[in-house]
Amino acid sequence: MEKAAIIHYPSDHYVYPYNEKTLHIRIQTKKDDVAEVTLIHGDQYLWSDGKWLFEETDMLKSGTDGIHDFWHVFIEPPYRRSRYGFKLKSGEEELILTEKGFYTLPPTDSGYYFNFPYLHAEEVFDAPSWVKETVWYQIFPERFANGNPDNDPEGALPWGSAPPSPTNFFGGDFEGVIEHLDYLQDLGITGIYFTPVFKAFSNHKYDTIDYLEIDPQFGTKETLKRLVEESHKRNIRVMLDAVFNHSGYYFPPFQDVLENGEKSKYKDWFHPHSFPLKGGKYPNYETFAFVAQMPKLNTKNPEVKEYLLKVAKYWIEEFNIDGWRLDVANEVDHQFWREFRQAVKSVKSDLYILGEIWHNSMPWLRGDQFDAVMNYPFTTNLLNLIAKKTITGTEFANNMTAEIHRYPANVYEAAFNLVGSHDTPRILTECEGNKDRVKLIYTILFTFMGSPCLYYGDEIGLSGEMDPGCRKCMEWDENKQDRELFSHIQQLIKLRREEKLLANEGQLEFFHTGSDLVAYQKYNNSKTIIVLANPSAESTEFTLPYSMKGVKITNLLSNEEFAAEADSLKVKLDGYGFDILSFPSALNK
Amino acid sequence: MEKAAIIHYPSDHYVYPYNEKTLHIRIQTKKDDVAEVTLIHGDQYLWSDGKWLFEETDMLKSGTDGIHDFWHVFIEPPYRRSRYGFKLKSGEEELILTEKGFYTLPPTDSGYYFNFPYLHAEEVFDAPSWVKETVWYQIFPERFANGNPDNDPEGALPWGSAPPSPTNFFGGDFEGVIEHLDYLQDLGITGIYFTPVFKAFSNHKYDTIDYLEIDPQFGTKETLKRLVEESHKRNIRVMLDAVFNHSGYYFPPFQDVLENGEKSKYKDWFHPHSFPLKGGKYPNYETFAFVAQMPKLNTKNPEVKEYLLKVAKYWIEEFNIDGWRLDVANEVDHQFWREFRQAVKSVKSDLYILGEIWHNSMPWLRGDQFDAVMNYPFTTNLLNLIAKKTITGTEFANNMTAEIHRYPANVYEAAFNLVGSHDTPRILTECEGNKDRVKLIYTILFTFMGSPCLYYGDEIGLSGEMDPGCRKCMEWDENKQDRELFSHIQQLIKLRREEKLLANEGQLEFFHTGSDLVAYQKYNNSKTIIVLANPSAESTEFTLPYSMKGVKITNLLSNEEFAAEADSLKVKLDGYGFDILSFPSALNK
Repeated sequence: MEKAAIIHYPSDHYVYPYNEKTLHIRIQTKKDDVAEVTLIHGDQYLWSDGKWLFEETDMLKSGTDGIHDFWHVFIEPPYRRSRYGFKLKSGEEELILTEKGFYTLPPTDSGYYFNFPYLHAEEVFDAPSWVKETVWYQIFPERFANGNPDNDPEGALPWGSAPPSPTNFFGGDFEGVIEHLDYLQDLGITGIYFTPVFKAFSNHKYDTIDYLEIDPQFGTKETLKRLVEESHKRNIRVMLDAVFNHSGYYFPPFQDVLENGEKSKYKDWFHPHSFPLKGGKYPNYETFAFVAQMPKLNTKNPEVKEYLLKVAKYWIEEFNIDGWRLDVANEVDHQFWREFRQAVKSVKSDLYILGEIWHNSMPWLRGDQFDAVMNYPFTTNLLNLIAKKTITGTEFANNMTAEIHRYPANVYEAAFNLVGSHDTPRILTECEGNKDRVKLIYTILFTFMGSPCLYYGDEIGLSGEMDPGCRKCMEWDENKQDRELFSHIQQLIKLRREEKLLANEGQLEFFHTGSDLVAYQKYNNSKTIIVLANPSAESTEFTLPYSMKGVKITNLLSNEEFAAEADSLKVKLDGYGFDILSFPSALNK
Repeated sequence: MEKAAIIHYPSDHYVYPYNEKTLHIRIQTKKDDVAEVTLIHGDQYLWSDGKWLFEETDMLKSGTDGIHDFWHVFIEPPYRRSRYGFKLKSGEEELILTEKGFYTLPPTDSGYYFNFPYLHAEEVFDAPSWVKETVWYQIFPERFANGNPDNDPEGALPWGSAPPSPTNFFGGDFEGVIEHLDYLQDLGITGIYFTPVFKAFSNHKYDTIDYLEIDPQFGTKETLKRLVEESHKRNIRVMLDAVFNHSGYYFPPFQDVLENGEKSKYKDWFHPHSFPLKGGKYPNYETFAFVAQMPKLNTKNPEVKEYLLKVAKYWIEEFNIDGWRLDVANEVDHQFWREFRQAVKSVKSDLYILGEIWHNSMPWLRGDQFDAVMNYPFTTNLLNLIAKKTITGTEFANNMTAEIHRYPANVYEAAFNLVGSHDTPRILTECEGNKDRVKLIYTILFTFMGSPCLYYGDEIGLSGEMDPGCRKCMEWDENKQDRELFSHIQQLIKLRREEKLLANEGQLEFFHTGSDLVAYQKYNNSKTIIVLANPSAESTEFTLPYSMKGVKITNLLSNEEFAAEADSLKVKLDGYGFDILSFPSALNK
């Protein structure tokens, strides 16, 4: 066995409580190197005749990333404590891995083993339960709908009369959103994520001037209150965007430091290196990236902390919002986020805390900070597969298997999965205008683990290049909307609502199809759903690795029920074709 | 290259801020598989011509555990942000490891790389700086010295007149400690760790009755106050033992639940499964292990939390103690410890928080909970090598190299290293009475990374089997003390005080001696110290892998200065012999 490739670490994604009774334990081995893994486990204080009393439970292989195989097991320690090790078999060779290293026989002293010392129910990762079943819709409010021309900013252009530019305005507002809540409800949306709505200078509002005021171009506080109420009436939750890493240039405390330099009482609200403050290519104060207009806030300063936590609580207390999306969350200190979590959850215990982090986010997802991060690795892999065509189906399966195993299952179930946003080209444009590819992308988005999000207008076929192109005005003329695409998405959302297995119940595993075809199953004890997606323009086929004798099958998209004609089931898919098949659970490989 | 054995994880011991400017980055590869590793790194926002601007820095091999090689590098990101990846070379093969997988050429987009998003000075692991240089002395107060016969418990036996039993008393007290502070100062001690001193039933006091009272057999609060003051006058710090996982059976709230069952207002202070409470082999309430006399406290209950945090602060505020040792710390919830840290550090910012954890403790050492844990893996390996003789010198080097690399360097520097305690046989007994082996153990203890601790009486050769044998009364008759052993330890402590390199400055690495000999070096930019220890009864020799031309060498134990006679230096050691040699820094292999 390749000992150097046997990886387990007694924390994070390798061992965690899944619920108040169940512990998940995982290990990685070199691909195809190990035939069987058995967990040795027991309560560390249960001994008999001078020897530790342990039991053995088989581990299951849950996939490969092309380099490692991943194994997992779920156990319920009767006294909440669990010492554990791994028995690995390969041919005639058998090894025991403990925390103190490899042995040929299981050590008889529990002190040698890895330790999960106590399963505290309060330490189970507790993203709000509603998130797993939510379907999000991202709104860039300046461009969704203009419901009230009276609050249009000066110089606003008639709706859709010009291409979006970095500086133009079209008058989108909250009233416009309220008018179209029924549209969203009809689509199946159950959560809206708004990019920033606070008083700011730009059309994107990421340069906050006042964190406690609504930008007047979007309406008033009363309008927001009504928007949240009307959304809630339709079972739609509302998430706002908090830009706490940096303020805008016109944020009064920053203006005060610009003006008064070292004498400003706000100088410790930022990170000045010298005075007077100077912008330019490399500002003499810390900023987001090197953007002089976005001075970094000093979130370690108790005054700043108090101010921002007041802001965070205010919009929940007064407006009853359901989530905070946190901009550039990875560059703010962990202690700030810990206090943020305590503050907001003290007001609303099931508020969703979503961090913008593009890379491995485990340090923010240990239960003390965020409920989820924006799942860009999902975005990248899915687009690379279907839009950019830079990776194969096998690479997609490998990469996503690796991603899923980078986090505890209950963490990944709450991930925020997006396929486009105000910062990327639109999905139809990414797919070179090919709608079949767009539909395939949504088929995977809505059947995968995580909480899926649509970017406004993508559902009716808006196109657009990278920002500002992707920030076009929403098209409200039904004749200009792609209603067929809308219906496909509507159907997928309905399916996800009806089939709990699609909405993050159970396990997700990929098949090795031997072709470009992507195939994965989601299963629990009572059902299996298999998703097949062909990212190629050529037709393909796949024989499911199960005995189909007497098995009834339902095609969830067509609602047809059928039985395999032979003992095996061969599925044929057209170019960019897809299928979602439902089976009774007991499928035998 | 064995890709499956190339391990890096963007958190914990693999990437961490060492100080407010410096980031440490580590990676593991299969032993002897990779010839060179180079870090590719840069600020993620610095681009030129559409490509990320990165630089390359060579990584150094810092040891092997027999399965992996460990590599490290220190960098100072100019803007506090660092994206990074690894270039690995083996023969003609070159691979780039990024967060998104392996490539043959470095991706030109910083988004592919691992990310350490921002080095916050406040997030540098901040164990109190004094701990690195402290030499601890553990006192079991019932058995150290009886300074005041008036507070002897009923039935106390004359000092040392009988072997220790689980239930007998000899009247040790605070006054006795005060009387012998000069003795400790003479030995070189700078910290005392007391096992519990609060009101309790047993002689070991781990079964607390009142967390806010001193056990009367040890004296009064006034005596403790005087003890701390007198210790501080001698530059000796004082650490007490907090047993917060469970209370004692006679803790009044537990007695109340025993008496009143479900009606007790204290029922949520514990974890009852049913009423009335019943002890027995498997109590119907949660306990430490299965010990009915030690009911587990519900540290998630706000009332319990408030009470215990009040206790934690009280002994600091009123008695000015310098550290808390936390009993069974791993079975208490993390959130309790986070609040504990905030509470105690708010009173005394450089208080030492030391958890009792026997296994991998990274989840408690991320900066938000403990400053250190009791380093039992060090104890076990050192005793296995020299006392029990169950591992070889090579295995010791492998195991300790693995241990050192399980934690950030600044974490390991604050570890609490012990070679015996009130829960283990005494070190002389473990060494079968062989004092040369005891001296060898201390030579390693006082020259290793971490904060070393002596168990009372071990320095003058007390013997004793496992508890209760190891809890003998201290021997104060100098004629019965092993003064030669005392002097050896005194010299080692003095050396550690004088040579900052021994007290956790710089890097520790083992040599591969090819024999049973243990050899390691500690070095920084201005000096190298090499420690040689022969765990075998046979004499041995080792040629240092350095060119010795013109190099002056100091033997720190004998204070002799000499120069190598040849270009190389061969060191000869008797059975159980040791040497501590000091060199100017620029030693060339």
